[in-house]
Amino acid sequence: MSQSIAPLDPPTRVLLGPGPSDPAPGVLSALARPTLGHLDPAFIAIMDELCAMLRSAFRTQNELTLPVSGTGSAGMEACVVNVVEPGDAVLVGVNGVFGKRLCEVARRAGAEVTACEGEWGRALQAQDVRRAAQGRPYKLVCAVHAETSTGARTDIAALRPVADELGALLLADCVTSLGGLPLELDAWGVDIAYSGTQKCLSCPPGLAPVSFSPRARAALEQRKTPVQSWYLDLSLVGNYWGSERTYHHTAPINMLYGLHEALRIALAEGLEARWQRHERNAHALWAGLEALGLELVVPAEERLTPLTSVRIPAGVDDARVRRFLLDEYSLEIGGGLGPFQGQVWRIGLMGTGSNRRNVELCLAGLSAALRAQGHALLADPLAAAHAAYAG
Amino acid sequence: MSQSIAPLDPPTRVLLGPGPSDPAPGVLSALARPTLGHLDPAFIAIMDELCAMLRSAFRTQNELTLPVSGTGSAGMEACVVNVVEPGDAVLVGVNGVFGKRLCEVARRAGAEVTACEGEWGRALQAQDVRRAAQGRPYKLVCAVHAETSTGARTDIAALRPVADELGALLLADCVTSLGGLPLELDAWGVDIAYSGTQKCLSCPPGLAPVSFSPRARAALEQRKTPVQSWYLDLSLVGNYWGSERTYHHTAPINMLYGLHEALRIALAEGLEARWQRHERNAHALWAGLEALGLELVVPAEERLTPLTSVRIPAGVDDARVRRFLLDEYSLEIGGGLGPFQGQVWRIGLMGTGSNRRNVELCLAGLSAALRAQGHALLADPLAAAHAAYAG
Repeated sequence: MSQSIAPLDPPTRVLLGPGPSDPAPGVLSALARPTLGHLDPAFIAIMDELCAMLRSAFRTQNELTLPVSGTGSAGMEACVVNVVEPGDAVLVGVNGVFGKRLCEVARRAGAEVTACEGEWGRALQAQDVRRAAQGRPYKLVCAVHAETSTGARTDIAALRPVADELGALLLADCVTSLGGLPLELDAWGVDIAYSGTQKCLSCPPGLAPVSFSPRARAALEQRKTPVQSWYLDLSLVGNYWGSERTYHHTAPINMLYGLHEALRIALAEGLEARWQRHERNAHALWAGLEALGLELVVPAEERLTPLTSVRIPAGVDDARVRRFLLDEYSLEIGGGLGPFQGQVWRIGLMGTGSNRRNVELCLAGLSAALRAQGHALLADPLAAAHAAYAG
Repeated sequence: MSQSIAPLDPPTRVLLGPGPSDPAPGVLSALARPTLGHLDPAFIAIMDELCAMLRSAFRTQNELTLPVSGTGSAGMEACVVNVVEPGDAVLVGVNGVFGKRLCEVARRAGAEVTACEGEWGRALQAQDVRRAAQGRPYKLVCAVHAETSTGARTDIAALRPVADELGALLLADCVTSLGGLPLELDAWGVDIAYSGTQKCLSCPPGLAPVSFSPRARAALEQRKTPVQSWYLDLSLVGNYWGSERTYHHTAPINMLYGLHEALRIALAEGLEARWQRHERNAHALWAGLEALGLELVVPAEERLTPLTSVRIPAGVDDARVRRFLLDEYSLEIGGGLGPFQGQVWRIGLMGTGSNRRNVELCLAGLSAALRAQGHALLADPLAAAHAAYAG
């Protein structure tokens, strides 16, 4: 049967879910450039440019800044397993799926995990983390900057003093923030960060940028046990990305072309301009959603601009609405995860996808879908969005 | 500085190293198709086709057959850490870099590793594996089908009776064999196999096809401890690729497009035809290399057809030759690894790249490079290759 399979012909969507977002067109073209060998001098020049751009995007001077050869979750795992040794105490702020995942990954690395449970849909508070720590020392304090499962933004800089009190390194999940939301690794004192390419960088999924501060790097060097993952061992991976160029594993060349182009586009726009663009479009979306009579999950001051969670009104069928948007508009929005499944939609305006056309198309589609299910709109969503753009 | 970086413009190489090989043009175009969401019904149809084609390529009925979201080494790690629990006895045949790597990965997973050391550049012999086992029981016997570091091919089917005697599962590294060399997972009784996309499938690096037999899958289900890697936990990953479609991590969508197209091309050619093509071109290359007065590392009957190792003649500068080929012909061949560093070149004729044009171009370039360093050719390499093609 396989011999008769036709070439791919994927439909062109408008991706307004929690990621992947629509790649920038230049990024897709970059993926298709001729493959180079992973030790080719021409490729090594590309690697160096890429790492320099990653440092700019993360706002860091960290030498150990590179893209891990896997998706965002591989980045999470790389950050945890390189630092954690069996028996290490790790404190994790949990206010969504990705905090929970951090706990699981740390436990599998042998950590003694303390979870600081926060409310889903709310920011994690520094005083709650301090309280959960109960004054004990920790190797690592972890928090999710932009919780993709809820749309809540946590103030990472506020956790630095807490980590200092506990003698801990500070780790931040920046998957949905890098390139879309103010993020300042060095100014905030973040020791370890990971991200993904398929959110606000507008590159397809497949790579996970990570960054380790000199202090975090020292922790790697002082390990008493080998990192449990050979593939993700950043001392070895770093020897390939660093000046030694020692072969470790074959780098995912064409995906790295895509990330190179994505970073180039983001930095050419300027990070501040990009953050402001995400903010402007998010405000218009929020105004429109409220006009539709929908309730936003996260309070305004804790909301992510690249990702908005909205409650599904009573009597409206989650799957039917999402299928309607896909069939009628070729437009994807995301469903809820965990306790939010069937309760919440997640609407992403990420990277290139954060634009006025997408905001108004999404409002048009959602209002049609809701009307089709007998939901009464509160006001004109487009008028509300237009007012937000005008304001 | 980052703001002034120019768009990528990678040179077009002829990649005749140990991988990555040159992707088929259709594969590069597939990478640039519009990204779909990882739960989009249109993407799920692509996943199903892809897994069916992978089973055909591996010659297996194994239900648990899927591409791991990382390069070949991630596939190796996924195969090992899903099966091995702390304290398990693992026997590894080591006749090159990748056997050594298997030992390291298994040790980091807590295995008690016994290495059966074989000669570099030679096949691993079943009786040597049996002797190294010393009659003790093992959870897992591992061997490298196609040792990319040396160019030697091991008879994997011959290890099945040994694994049976030891009560072990049989694991095979098929990174450089899948799509280029006869490979029959089910007929040979292989329980666990992994490969990479960047060799004989002619897809860029970034994915690792793996396959688990029902017996290997039962071992996963009977684990007493969690898999140390959350990212590579195939019970979780398998729930996304299986009928449940449970979100685990965001699949690397565009890379999967590339693999879909690569498998489609390979199966449309036909596996037997593809294996024969690799064989025909390898024989012509070998004839030409011998005419150049070069010594092939591996005896003819144990040689890989997709990858040939050749000794660097005394007085010839390894790096200068490879740089000359890159500068003058934009052609890459590989250097040696480990004890073969500076001693050996590795010439790959993999996937689409296994063709007459590449064979003769490589011989032309090598003869020029050797002449430039005063090496006397034994005979006319092109005449030797032409005779091989004619014969």
